[in-house]
Amino acid sequence: MNPINLFAIILAGGSGTRFWPLSRETCPKQMLQIVGEDTLLRQTIKRVQGFVPPQNIWIVTTEDKAQDIRFHLDPLGPLAKEIRILREPAGRNTAPAIALAAIYLHKLCPESVMVIMPSDHVIPDADNFLGDLKRAIQGALKDYLVTFGIKPIRPETGYGYIKVKKWPAVPDQRDKPDEPDRGLQKVDRFLEKPDLQAAKAFLSEGGYFWNSGIFVWKTSKILSEIENHLPKLYKTLKEMESLLFLPDQPAQPNQPNEPDKPDESDRRSALCAQCYAKLEPISIDYGIMEKSHEVWMVPATFQWSDLGSWAALDEISERDREGNILRGNAVDIDSQNSIIFSDQRLIATIGLNEMVVVDTPDATLVMPKGRAQDVRKIVETLKHKHREEHFIHRTVERPWGSYTVLEKGDRYKIKRVVLKPGARLSLQRHRLRSEHWVVVSGTAKVTREDETCLIHTNESAFIPIKTKHRLENPGEEPLQIIEVQSGDYLEEDDIERFEDDYGRTQSTR
Amino acid sequence: MNPINLFAIILAGGSGTRFWPLSRETCPKQMLQIVGEDTLLRQTIKRVQGFVPPQNIWIVTTEDKAQDIRFHLDPLGPLAKEIRILREPAGRNTAPAIALAAIYLHKLCPESVMVIMPSDHVIPDADNFLGDLKRAIQGALKDYLVTFGIKPIRPETGYGYIKVKKWPAVPDQRDKPDEPDRGLQKVDRFLEKPDLQAAKAFLSEGGYFWNSGIFVWKTSKILSEIENHLPKLYKTLKEMESLLFLPDQPAQPNQPNEPDKPDESDRRSALCAQCYAKLEPISIDYGIMEKSHEVWMVPATFQWSDLGSWAALDEISERDREGNILRGNAVDIDSQNSIIFSDQRLIATIGLNEMVVVDTPDATLVMPKGRAQDVRKIVETLKHKHREEHFIHRTVERPWGSYTVLEKGDRYKIKRVVLKPGARLSLQRHRLRSEHWVVVSGTAKVTREDETCLIHTNESAFIPIKTKHRLENPGEEPLQIIEVQSGDYLEEDDIERFEDDYGRTQSTR
Repeated sequence: MNPINLFAIILAGGSGTRFWPLSRETCPKQMLQIVGEDTLLRQTIKRVQGFVPPQNIWIVTTEDKAQDIRFHLDPLGPLAKEIRILREPAGRNTAPAIALAAIYLHKLCPESVMVIMPSDHVIPDADNFLGDLKRAIQGALKDYLVTFGIKPIRPETGYGYIKVKKWPAVPDQRDKPDEPDRGLQKVDRFLEKPDLQAAKAFLSEGGYFWNSGIFVWKTSKILSEIENHLPKLYKTLKEMESLLFLPDQPAQPNQPNEPDKPDESDRRSALCAQCYAKLEPISIDYGIMEKSHEVWMVPATFQWSDLGSWAALDEISERDREGNILRGNAVDIDSQNSIIFSDQRLIATIGLNEMVVVDTPDATLVMPKGRAQDVRKIVETLKHKHREEHFIHRTVERPWGSYTVLEKGDRYKIKRVVLKPGARLSLQRHRLRSEHWVVVSGTAKVTREDETCLIHTNESAFIPIKTKHRLENPGEEPLQIIEVQSGDYLEEDDIERFEDDYGRTQSTR
Repeated sequence: MNPINLFAIILAGGSGTRFWPLSRETCPKQMLQIVGEDTLLRQTIKRVQGFVPPQNIWIVTTEDKAQDIRFHLDPLGPLAKEIRILREPAGRNTAPAIALAAIYLHKLCPESVMVIMPSDHVIPDADNFLGDLKRAIQGALKDYLVTFGIKPIRPETGYGYIKVKKWPAVPDQRDKPDEPDRGLQKVDRFLEKPDLQAAKAFLSEGGYFWNSGIFVWKTSKILSEIENHLPKLYKTLKEMESLLFLPDQPAQPNQPNEPDKPDESDRRSALCAQCYAKLEPISIDYGIMEKSHEVWMVPATFQWSDLGSWAALDEISERDREGNILRGNAVDIDSQNSIIFSDQRLIATIGLNEMVVVDTPDATLVMPKGRAQDVRKIVETLKHKHREEHFIHRTVERPWGSYTVLEKGDRYKIKRVVLKPGARLSLQRHRLRSEHWVVVSGTAKVTREDETCLIHTNESAFIPIKTKHRLENPGEEPLQIIEVQSGDYLEEDDIERFEDDYGRTQSTR
């Protein structure tokens, strides 16, 4: 097929509460570097880079995550600017997200083939993945719905299963490497997460695979399946389509709703959001795959993990001789088969067995591996208590660098702010706080109202309340300042922006 | 007896590595508030307050801990100034420490009776303790060496045992409440920590008690026993005595070597230290109690724990319905029989069983209760690696308030400094760093060379390198400042003091 018609749709709306405290609402699992050399989302992009044209890589995420994900792509360099982000007004599980992408795509490119990929899975061997992907595309071109099945290695009860019609596969299919269907198996049915007894039976019987959640199909095909199996969803999307592609707002196929919302009428945008919000949350597995009769499967030759919980690290990470995975500033005596993730702080462990310890600057988690699924209960408790530790990290990455909250006190807050060379914050003003800046490395260019001056290492500046100001790093090294905020109200939303290099109007720093 | 002859000798030289990370070399176990309303040392003092005259309460500790212990007594108010601190040149276990106190005491008050108490034990019921103590004193006046035995409630292998001669006790002794010997038991022998089998046998046989490490005797009696059983120690102490009580340096019996060393010749002081350093470390139990034939025991009617490790908290702390001891900022789901100690940071735990989790701002410890004795191995590892986490806390208490290291970076360090009302730091100078102070609450009086000014909340001051300066809290509320240090060398020993309210010449802040 013509690569111009091949699109990678990366689903990045998940909140990943199961990797708390490393994941937070503002830093979900896909934005974490848990395994491998980069974050899971960026690894997912790199996996198809060169195979799918850059402008055909689309990320589907929710409105509230879109800006952070855009900033998160920065390290990808020029590629980042090519990638499209499609914003869901709200999270409604995978079927609506995929349907939204399909309806956009269909307008843009009726011949398109979609490769749907979760953004938070681990696939260490990209070559095998691409080989299998090619096979899947061949199937998709025959109007199959194609998925990837992972050969089960244990009676896992945390995954859905796929049962194929014939197993073992017909030998002559396997023997013909040029046969487009090579390895493609007709799927008998999709099965939801089984109990242990059933899972054991699947393993001994053979012909059952783990459902990887990666799908390949023609856009036209999935739309007709949605029309068929999820008619309400289809109808709503059709209504939205007419709002999204209004004649007075020319469809900008290469920039769907992105990077910043075009100046379309707020009313129409709100209507879309209303439509989408009314959608029933439903997964593509349950809504389509379990119902369709045209599902085929490629048995994956690649290693895979969905990293469903901290305990899943065992499948995919290298362990030491005692079976431990130790990362960061850990001092251990006699532990076995345990996962110890620390950051800067010291974590000392003695004689742990099958335990998980995860440390971050503001929260530490300790549990047996067997309880890894219950991390979400902790997150729910924190939400319920209106705590901050489920929401945001002490260090927050921004397009211009990062800031770290070192301490919050009564009427003061201390941050370390790091600016990349050449970066600058927005021209801004705070109504309720003043700020002291002490430069601890680099040189700062400081604007206060009409005055501008350079503040060198070991010098300081004072920004009085209600003063329009800007911080800039004119140098070639990172600029680090310690900011002491003082005032009655010290939250991030006390900010009025006048100019911003990053197209932000109203959001945190 | 005349109370004027009764002395409480509190042994406070221990480093308490087993309570790491809450205990540190600069903040040993006796200075921690682990159980009860105050720190273990201050609880020990309060236990005998009113029974022993204030000036007869002596603390024996090592030279390096003496200043911190002196500051630690401040919250006791006027009592603190009466308490004497006897400095050992170096730690040599309990026999030399007790011998040193005895030889001082004997000069001062030959008729004295010494009550020897560890500073890091828990005794919740002071009334019962004092009742038992009175009985012990009656025995001491008969020239007995008297100890307290704790009725064992389990076959503990972590304690030494005391076997009494006759058990059960002669009934008619118990029936005569006015009989001075009431409850006093002649000791058959002292036994070192037994194995489990032996401990079980002790329990079933009866007549065995845990050795509490609390002793009562006449000063003259213990000196004659030391002369008898530890002749080398006795000889060395006699040599030291002649150095300590030189004619040209009048013996100041009420202020032995304290609070700051009198202007005795450095040579003599060094000689003493040399003598003491050569002493063989030996415990009073091994050196005297196991050998003497004149040991008697009071069976304790008070509750007691030596808090030998984190696991010992179970004996003495209230547990919730699940058997947990939770303190601080902990969120737990389904844990049982576990100890979770947190400070400000969030500790989230799921499904722990018989575990210990202790969090401090710079280090967290996780282990099963059964490994609690191995905490010292972690401390040894940290020492070996020249880490700081075994040595000092992020927050350091000082006589004028406290400071907390919020962050250390390359060429900068950030502290929050809190000054008590009316307190001031020394007039000082740093050779290698400058300091920015931002006042976040209260008002600071800042001296820079000859200039003095008031800095209010939300104002700042800059202390250039090599500038003589002083920080003072002239107000009636605590003063809080954020200090950003900047320079090539940022350790506490870059300080030159010119005046100090706390008699400090050269030490940390």
